[in-house]
Amino acid sequence: MTTIRQIAKLANVSVSTVSRVLNNHPYVNEQTRNDVQAIIDQLNYTPNSNAIHLSKGKTNVIGISLPLVNNQYYSSILEGIAKEAAKENYHLMVCQTNNDKKKEEEILQMLRNKKMDGLIMCSKLNEGSSLEMFSTYAPIVTCEANDVPSISSVYMNHYETFRMSMDYLIQKGHTKIGYCIGRKNSFNSTHRKQAYIEGLHSIGVTPNTNWTFEECLTIDDGKHVAQQLVQLDQRPTALVVSCNHIAASIRKEIERNGIQVPEQLAIIGCDDQPIGDLFDITTISSQSEQLGKHAFRLFFKRLTTEQQLNEHIEVSPQLIERTST
Amino acid sequence: MTTIRQIAKLANVSVSTVSRVLNNHPYVNEQTRNDVQAIIDQLNYTPNSNAIHLSKGKTNVIGISLPLVNNQYYSSILEGIAKEAAKENYHLMVCQTNNDKKKEEEILQMLRNKKMDGLIMCSKLNEGSSLEMFSTYAPIVTCEANDVPSISSVYMNHYETFRMSMDYLIQKGHTKIGYCIGRKNSFNSTHRKQAYIEGLHSIGVTPNTNWTFEECLTIDDGKHVAQQLVQLDQRPTALVVSCNHIAASIRKEIERNGIQVPEQLAIIGCDDQPIGDLFDITTISSQSEQLGKHAFRLFFKRLTTEQQLNEHIEVSPQLIERTST
Repeated sequence: MTTIRQIAKLANVSVSTVSRVLNNHPYVNEQTRNDVQAIIDQLNYTPNSNAIHLSKGKTNVIGISLPLVNNQYYSSILEGIAKEAAKENYHLMVCQTNNDKKKEEEILQMLRNKKMDGLIMCSKLNEGSSLEMFSTYAPIVTCEANDVPSISSVYMNHYETFRMSMDYLIQKGHTKIGYCIGRKNSFNSTHRKQAYIEGLHSIGVTPNTNWTFEECLTIDDGKHVAQQLVQLDQRPTALVVSCNHIAASIRKEIERNGIQVPEQLAIIGCDDQPIGDLFDITTISSQSEQLGKHAFRLFFKRLTTEQQLNEHIEVSPQLIERTST
Repeated sequence: MTTIRQIAKLANVSVSTVSRVLNNHPYVNEQTRNDVQAIIDQLNYTPNSNAIHLSKGKTNVIGISLPLVNNQYYSSILEGIAKEAAKENYHLMVCQTNNDKKKEEEILQMLRNKKMDGLIMCSKLNEGSSLEMFSTYAPIVTCEANDVPSISSVYMNHYETFRMSMDYLIQKGHTKIGYCIGRKNSFNSTHRKQAYIEGLHSIGVTPNTNWTFEECLTIDDGKHVAQQLVQLDQRPTALVVSCNHIAASIRKEIERNGIQVPEQLAIIGCDDQPIGDLFDITTISSQSEQLGKHAFRLFFKRLTTEQQLNEHIEVSPQLIERTST
């Protein structure tokens, strides 16, 4: 097996010069670089990066766990992470969990096994206490609020976002309001439901369970919600929807059925997917790409400073008014 | 430093039993598993996966290079890869190139340095000859056609897709046809432009450069194309658009300007993004999730069989008629 020492001897340079050539270090004379590279190519020498990691204790890999890659909210967070990671020469290990807790545990084990220098969790399925244990191995950052002191977070306040939507609709005179959210019992959904109930409570209205829709994840799910709304004798006059691709799908299907938006049904979304713009959905922007950028910076700061300080950044929601309300 | 041997001694079991517990192997008595795990936890022992790779020579990581993660065509390929990879317990190392050749070279170097067991290139920027060299280190699969014998591929025939679109529009009586594509000089774009020119040639029509738009990547780019079309004295009556998010954006902006689709401008897309459905865009479906699934299977087959056989799978395009034509 060829070693870096043999290459140095053949090229008549020092071992550290060969190392600089292998690592694309800038301070190498061009002629020397070519000579060394020629010998490396001739011997078909490949440094084994796993051996390098073993000696350096660093992988330059950041792990990312998310429920779905093919979802604009998450791919936009991923885009933000990718942009910042590229600046620091970090590579992305992406784990799609499909909301399966076991799958999330796998990537946590990979963190423990030093396959990556840290982990960004775009959403989380495991309990805080379990994540806390894993955070002793390497920095973890969540893109939702968490109550674990050892884990940094950057998040939208989903209670605030949903409450802003409710107050906006109430101010417009609506009292018959429904909602449409993703996972029934996720951390975010719990806060959204609380905001919904408290929003209605502020005007003395009791929630109507015929107007609340859960487990809406895909465009098809949005279509089904619209079809159920069409069938109702008593319809809500407004709907708060957690994701804009669902809001867009509801708007399309409900209008296809002759129900006018916003006159007969006002729709407000709660993220910043571009599809919301194309379907003129009023929305409370979640600035998802910013979430991803902040998340990587928090991880990198933790990694490169000796401080064990964790930060929690709340990203402010922002109302964008369009024709759907 | 704790070793697996010490754990075995303390638990009074063999080294291979400890190894089975660490690797979640099924054939371990439940009581033994608990005893061993308790000692592992007590000693806070973590197997270093980089050392494991070094001995096994396998990483269970598949690399994926793509121009943009936040793009429905690519995130849908990624979804397909993720689904198949999960079945074989493979993890995804995702490299967003932003169409920068250097960034693509980085992930090729990672392949060479054994950071992954193979690489799926959703699009490719480097020359075939360069990829051929890297394919000697580990299997490479491209999600576009390639002419390198040592690299498997699964692809849409983009000439065929664009030609199908042209023939469809010509059959509907159109002669004033424009196009709208992404990167000007990519492998796919070259074939699309050829199909466009040959399609027009078949009815004796010379292309009009006022009607061809290149470097259209985002929803905003689509909006600008529509605004340019509005300004033209002589407009095309039909447009072939490579991506449905661009087609949707053009349809929205052109209709906002009072131009009727399809009466004054017919629009046909060339992929299967769900946004095409929401905007009723007639499209030649590219079945992108299928591309991703096939790509992973091809990689895995190469890895697990001794044969050095490469395959090239052409996925058939399929016309979906909607109201935009």
